[in-house]
This record gives sequence, structure tokens and C-alpha cells, in this order.
Amino acid sequence: MVLVMGIDPGVASTGFGVVRIAGGQMSAVDGGVIEMPPGDRLEIRLARIHAELEQLVSWHSPAALALEDLYFGKNVRSAIAVGQARGVAMLAAAQHEIPCFDYTPQAVKLSVCGSGAADKQQVQQMVGALLGLPRPPESDHAADALAVAICHASQTRFEHGVNRAASPRARAG
Amino acid sequence: MVLVMGIDPGVASTGFGVVRIAGGQMSAVDGGVIEMPPGDRLEIRLARIHAELEQLVSWHSPAALALEDLYFGKNVRSAIAVGQARGVAMLAAAQHEIPCFDYTPQAVKLSVCGSGAADKQQVQQMVGALLGLPRPPESDHAADALAVAICHASQTRFEHGVNRAASPRARAG
Repeated sequence: MVLVMGIDPGVASTGFGVVRIAGGQMSAVDGGVIEMPPGDRLEIRLARIHAELEQLVSWHSPAALALEDLYFGKNVRSAIAVGQARGVAMLAAAQHEIPCFDYTPQAVKLSVCGSGAADKQQVQQMVGALLGLPRPPESDHAADALAVAICHASQTRFEHGVNRAASPRARAG
Repeated sequence: MVLVMGIDPGVASTGFGVVRIAGGQMSAVDGGVIEMPPGDRLEIRLARIHAELEQLVSWHSPAALALEDLYFGKNVRSAIAVGQARGVAMLAAAQHEIPCFDYTPQAVKLSVCGSGAADKQQVQQMVGALLGLPRPPESDHAADALAVAICHASQTRFEHGVNRAASPRARAG
């Protein structure tokens, strides 16, 4: 059994999701959104993101933290903002000696939906289906965080030579 | 007497500088560069930047942390990298309830050199002169960190209505 935490970092809202992999099956252990009051100073928001993620990392003790690699499709202003949230998220992992892994949005969509060009709604639906949730996650941010965790879990199983067909739903879509 | 800490954030090298303002005179209290071994994983580098800055903030207890606002002149990849380092720097400040302030590179150069178009060498020389150092800081990163601290110190004195001419060197260049 292994846990992977996925993060969708942002200074207004940071999504998180924890996926459990056991016997070739994935399930959702936790997921949600850390919302920052818009009036708060940036450093206060970053401190809140760090404190909440640090607590989640401490509770779940995941084997890895997975994040989307957002080098493309962003302007410089939003890239710095996302970078700041990424920085404190990765710090929370490092403080518990948990390694971080980046995946491009295309790799995440390919892993979750079977197509690198899938849209947000497809990702939400497939995340719900892959994790056996009664309905897709309501929040985009939580769905994206769970999606990158699923992507890392699939990738890791592949690298370790475990047959991905053991979890046929991971190839659906 | 008040201390201002300036930061030049980066995931390879992060410059820092602490400026003391007393009786309308500025002096350097501390300054240097936190160098990260290039082979280290990104999250380990971020943890090192955070730990070192957190210790410096704790030691000096500055009234403010000043950073350059790097929305311009960067590509998205380097903006995310700088954003990550900025995030953990601002977190270190927030964890000690120290407010953070951003200044554009033009504002920093104008404050330190009297011209928003000054080059790196001019900034280094003026930082040395304004802080009464025997010679300009050797490191670009330390000089940039001291420069943004000087900029914040000047700005704050201006906002508080203190006559900037009390420190005539701040207008030189």
C-alpha cells in the first residue's frame, strides 16, 4: 500500500488530493481545496498554504508529492504567482523528506483520460471513475490534484515493472 | 533604529542583505549569498533557502522583508523558478510576522542610483557607497538584495514624511 499526494498550487486556491494504491487498485483517501481570503497579504496566504499542506503531509505521510509542471500556457505574472505556491508546497514535502515529482498537463491528461487533449470536465469525470467516487469531484482544483496523483501512481507502477493492466480502469477513456 | 532585509531570490543562488537605518543614516548589518549545490533536488534547495532565511530573519528580526518584483524581463520557466524561491522567502518572513514588500527593478535602480536604467555595476558601486562599505559587494545577488532593502528603507522614510535629504547620499548617482 502506498499513498501519493497531488497538489494543484495557486495563491487564491490550492487543491490537494491523496490517492491510495493497494493491490493494483486506486482509491481516494482525501481531497479538497485550501481557499485563501482574497484580502489577505500574499505572504499570509503562502503561510496558510504551507501550514495546511504541512499538516496534511504529516497526517498522511505520502510516499511522494506530485505537481503539475506549468511551464507552458501561463504568462509571467501568473507563473510567478503559481511558483510561489509551488515553492511552499514543495517545502512542506521536503520538511518531511518526501520527494516531489513534476508532470506536464499533457502527461496528466494522457494518464487519466487516455488523451493529452482532454478537457477539464473529462478529467473530473475520469478522476471520479478511476477512484470509484460516487460522483466526480466538484472542485476543479481538487480534481486536478487527484489527477496528478493518479498520474504519478501510474507512472511509478510502470517504472517498477508492475503490470498496469492490473488496474484496467487506469487505461480507460 | 530599524532593520530592513532585502532578498534576491533564486533556486541556484539567493542573495540576502540587511540594512540598518538610524538617524537618517544607512549601514549594512549583514549580506551574502545562499548557494545551492546544483545536484540537489529542487525541493531540497527550497528547504535550504527557507531554513537559512528563517534563521536570518530570526536573528535580525527586521521590520520588513523587501523583494524585487520580477514580473518583467523573465520567461515563464525562469518566472516559476524565481516564484518558488520567492514563496519560501516570503513564508520565512510570514512565520515571524514580518510584512513583505515588492519593488520593481526600475524603482530599486532609481532609489539606489538615481536612474531606473542603471546597470548592474552601477548598482553594486552605489550600494557600496550608500552603505559606507570599504568596497562594493562582490556578489551581484548580495548587492541586489542590499539594493532592494535600501529602496524599501528610502520609500518608508518618504512615506513617513521624514526628509530624505537627511541622507543625501540616497539621492546621489
